[in-house]
Amino acid sequence: MYRTHTCGELRMQNTGEEVTLSGWTDAKRDFGQLTFIDLRDRYGITQLVFDMDAQPELCNEARKIGREWVLLIKGIVRERSNKNPNRPTGEIEIDVFTLQVLNASKVPPFTIEENTDGGEEIRMKYRYLDIRRAPVKEKIIFRSKVAIETRKHLAEHGFIEIETPYLIKSTPEGARDFVVPSRMNPGQFYALPQSPQTFKQLLMVAGMDKYFQIVKCFRDEDLRADRQPEFTQIDCEMAFVVKEDILQTFEQLTRHLYKTVMGVELSDFPRMTYDEAMRRYGSDKPDLRFGMEFIELNDLAKGRGFPVFDQAELVVGISAKGQANKFSNKDIKKLTSWLQRPQIGAKGLVHVKWNEDGTIKSSVGKFFSDEQLKGWLEAMHARPGDMLLILAGDADPTRKQLSELRLEMAERMNLLDSKVVKPLWVIDFPLLEWDEDSQRFHAMHHPFTSPRKEDIELLNSSDRAVLSSIKADAYDLVINGAEIGGGSIRIHDRKIQMKTFHLLGFTDEEAESQFGFLMGAFEYGAPPHGGIAFGLDRLCAIMQGEKSIRDYIAFPKNNQGRDVMIDAPSPIDPDQLDELSLSLNLPIE
Amino acid sequence: MYRTHTCGELRMQNTGEEVTLSGWTDAKRDFGQLTFIDLRDRYGITQLVFDMDAQPELCNEARKIGREWVLLIKGIVRERSNKNPNRPTGEIEIDVFTLQVLNASKVPPFTIEENTDGGEEIRMKYRYLDIRRAPVKEKIIFRSKVAIETRKHLAEHGFIEIETPYLIKSTPEGARDFVVPSRMNPGQFYALPQSPQTFKQLLMVAGMDKYFQIVKCFRDEDLRADRQPEFTQIDCEMAFVVKEDILQTFEQLTRHLYKTVMGVELSDFPRMTYDEAMRRYGSDKPDLRFGMEFIELNDLAKGRGFPVFDQAELVVGISAKGQANKFSNKDIKKLTSWLQRPQIGAKGLVHVKWNEDGTIKSSVGKFFSDEQLKGWLEAMHARPGDMLLILAGDADPTRKQLSELRLEMAERMNLLDSKVVKPLWVIDFPLLEWDEDSQRFHAMHHPFTSPRKEDIELLNSSDRAVLSSIKADAYDLVINGAEIGGGSIRIHDRKIQMKTFHLLGFTDEEAESQFGFLMGAFEYGAPPHGGIAFGLDRLCAIMQGEKSIRDYIAFPKNNQGRDVMIDAPSPIDPDQLDELSLSLNLPIE
Repeated sequence: MYRTHTCGELRMQNTGEEVTLSGWTDAKRDFGQLTFIDLRDRYGITQLVFDMDAQPELCNEARKIGREWVLLIKGIVRERSNKNPNRPTGEIEIDVFTLQVLNASKVPPFTIEENTDGGEEIRMKYRYLDIRRAPVKEKIIFRSKVAIETRKHLAEHGFIEIETPYLIKSTPEGARDFVVPSRMNPGQFYALPQSPQTFKQLLMVAGMDKYFQIVKCFRDEDLRADRQPEFTQIDCEMAFVVKEDILQTFEQLTRHLYKTVMGVELSDFPRMTYDEAMRRYGSDKPDLRFGMEFIELNDLAKGRGFPVFDQAELVVGISAKGQANKFSNKDIKKLTSWLQRPQIGAKGLVHVKWNEDGTIKSSVGKFFSDEQLKGWLEAMHARPGDMLLILAGDADPTRKQLSELRLEMAERMNLLDSKVVKPLWVIDFPLLEWDEDSQRFHAMHHPFTSPRKEDIELLNSSDRAVLSSIKADAYDLVINGAEIGGGSIRIHDRKIQMKTFHLLGFTDEEAESQFGFLMGAFEYGAPPHGGIAFGLDRLCAIMQGEKSIRDYIAFPKNNQGRDVMIDAPSPIDPDQLDELSLSLNLPIE
Repeated sequence: MYRTHTCGELRMQNTGEEVTLSGWTDAKRDFGQLTFIDLRDRYGITQLVFDMDAQPELCNEARKIGREWVLLIKGIVRERSNKNPNRPTGEIEIDVFTLQVLNASKVPPFTIEENTDGGEEIRMKYRYLDIRRAPVKEKIIFRSKVAIETRKHLAEHGFIEIETPYLIKSTPEGARDFVVPSRMNPGQFYALPQSPQTFKQLLMVAGMDKYFQIVKCFRDEDLRADRQPEFTQIDCEMAFVVKEDILQTFEQLTRHLYKTVMGVELSDFPRMTYDEAMRRYGSDKPDLRFGMEFIELNDLAKGRGFPVFDQAELVVGISAKGQANKFSNKDIKKLTSWLQRPQIGAKGLVHVKWNEDGTIKSSVGKFFSDEQLKGWLEAMHARPGDMLLILAGDADPTRKQLSELRLEMAERMNLLDSKVVKPLWVIDFPLLEWDEDSQRFHAMHHPFTSPRKEDIELLNSSDRAVLSSIKADAYDLVINGAEIGGGSIRIHDRKIQMKTFHLLGFTDEEAESQFGFLMGAFEYGAPPHGGIAFGLDRLCAIMQGEKSIRDYIAFPKNNQGRDVMIDAPSPIDPDQLDELSLSLNLPIE
């Protein structure tokens, strides 16, 4: 037997007991007479003591032990003289009488500590050592708790977890699929699912109301920072529901998770239409932990002879509280350059400082009188000490630029408190998005999203503006400016689905060959239905106020999609390729 | 709102209430004055009534409705005059006053009933309709319950569910991998995991003791009946454990599942070594619901001048209770032919009938006296009326043939009671299996399985017989003759792992390139560890006494590995192939 207790378990009431523990050597301290070893396992750390006077041989053995060696010890629990109040086992220690080395360890390539000295790349290669570090270990355990509570809550509310297949069919719509060649069907391929979307809809047609699944999804995209080729979704679908049913259900789930895992009671989940979110925050996932709402100045700023404003479709700004004296001209210049980087693409930045002494300073002072600027300040509810930051140009890009600026200012002004949780439902997204490059509409959510009932008739229009105005019965849950998930009421009528495919540029044949099975199913009594999916990795990170999802994943891939620990992907045997009726067609170097 | 209640919810105490229900038209019965519709959803069936006298227009609408149409109705709950005690809602019906057709349905290609008229192939194609049938629906819900209770039990016992990656590395060892070409790494491939084996071992090295996961696994094998290319495992691993800890833990899990999901209390889980199982039952997964143990007759039957026996390594038989007068000579001939089919490959069958009148009849009566045959009957604890069935030949194949015969006889004698549950741990499997074709050893379990402690020294032998005698610290859970799962204590020492790879024919380089990451991890403080995996699909089928796993899978593939509903696998775009640096290399027709 390797242990009678874990390393996180022993307390004062165990003193005098003979115990067996196993674990890793977290730290060792040699003093003249005594040697201390901190023995660590998943559950905690317990201090071991070896006494040179009492048991010189044993103590000498202990002194040979290195970091991360795996030990089995037997000893007697006793009270510590020098207690450690920061450790649950800190009141006791083990007076060891038997020591067995279960496995030695080379010196780890980085320190196994809260704050390690190892860089990203080396920690990825030795992920199994990085996971021994408390911050990583705790994130993985946190994720497990979120998954358990999700399942518990949904099962209690009548949801059934149903597994959908991983070997499915490739469709060119949406992101790029990972494909899997079929040996038994030469020249044919499975695809790995980007989501179980069509299967969960088929489950609704099948009468399996209230489906959920915590499920891996796959996207072969060029990886941006913090994107993973495989990621996990909490995926749900319900039949005989309207939007309101789904929002209520997943608001409850979110409350349950925050309450049980974080001990946080969430207040209200306000709703905001997509149009309003864009107008007030320039974003479909506004961070509501702080204000700095957009104020439009077209009426006050245009037609006064300042060409930049006069030619702009939109003049819009934010008021940064108490920032007037914090930004020198040089700082403003830097901020302007930051805005002009291609990633943001603003043309310039107009500012108005309302100094504490009542004076007004602006980069457009030549064009506007103090009186006029005062009008702006009033419109933007500014007070002395505040600074207006104003952008102008075409409405959509200008709003997006100002949204970036709003977030940047919040960061600088320390307004992003990770302890504050501000959820928001964004609703009524546009159904279609015009793509200038391909000169066709794309589905903003996905092709199975239903228009709002009142907009269904508009699908018959051939006017691009009318089609662009159609709103989808779609919704996103946003927390602190991050999208946790989204969903929609789905189309459940073959004709409407076909019409949507046509608008997205599908021919009848393409629609039939790719999604014929779904449209066929709609002819056999498809119920009204809808659903939602939350990103589990992202949800965990947001709940803990972390920016990166990577440590919530036990074995993540790097930005090149590689697992550097196991060295995958890697070449395969020529025989394997032959069996798959494939040959490599590598670019000539 | 689509419903105030589900179709399985209303009872006598709801009479008088106004309700809204939605669901499918399960059946319709038109009488002179009344029309009845059975409205069905996931939760049950409720009877609707339409009265031609009271509401002729509504009743005429109802008469137009076809099978599987989706309806929304409003009405008043009332007591039925003609109650149906077989249905939970059978005491009430709904007097409908509003009827809305939510969706029509074509006539389904097979009947949506307990016993359908649809063949296998058509039901696979319209799987979403087949799932509406109660037997399929209930199996999927059953599986969901097994998964929930598994998670609940393991979480309560300190296990953490951790997701391991699906895009991993291909290894030629074991079954064939499905591979996934990497676009970002041309010429390189991921593999889909056959199991999370190496990752769960790395989690043990990482200190994440007590891991579990309910996880999809993939094997590109030529499909036999009831094999699926993707299947689901309950996968577990623990650190600082010996075999006994694991057997106890998963015996508890199995008890918990039978108790909570089936209401069945399991009695003992006996253990039997592999050698004993082979000797007594000719199988490493003996069905213990019935006896018919093997009795070896070498001492009594050899050296008596019957050449078949004299030349045989083993003479072994079973005694079939009360079967003496049930098998005519013709029946015996048929049974012999059945045994001689290539799938079984027996050379012949010797029988001895002990008739009720005390006379003895045998196919080898010429070679053996009644006295001698009596000796056999006694050795096999036979009584008048019983029949001995005896095979002879090389020991291993003869035992396997007799095992098939034992099961066949049990089937014919109606001894396979699906209500009886007989679990068994088979332990001490051979570590290595000699393969005549490739003239090398294979791992009987997998290459990471540890020999029993007492056998580790034998790894140094170069004698094939000695190596064949090494026992692994491996175990299988068998229930009613089906393997539910298996596992082992793993190697956690680099040197022993490398030695095992050598015995399996790996060169140093091969071992390093394929499993270097794991052997590397063993050098950084790998703890002793072991684990187990249960097949979830199989477990569900065994629990319910079903032979096929297929209906426990929502969307199974057929025997050619195809999903005939969505028509996958299928050809992909030439552009997709180009992006993957691949070209097809199809066999010329």
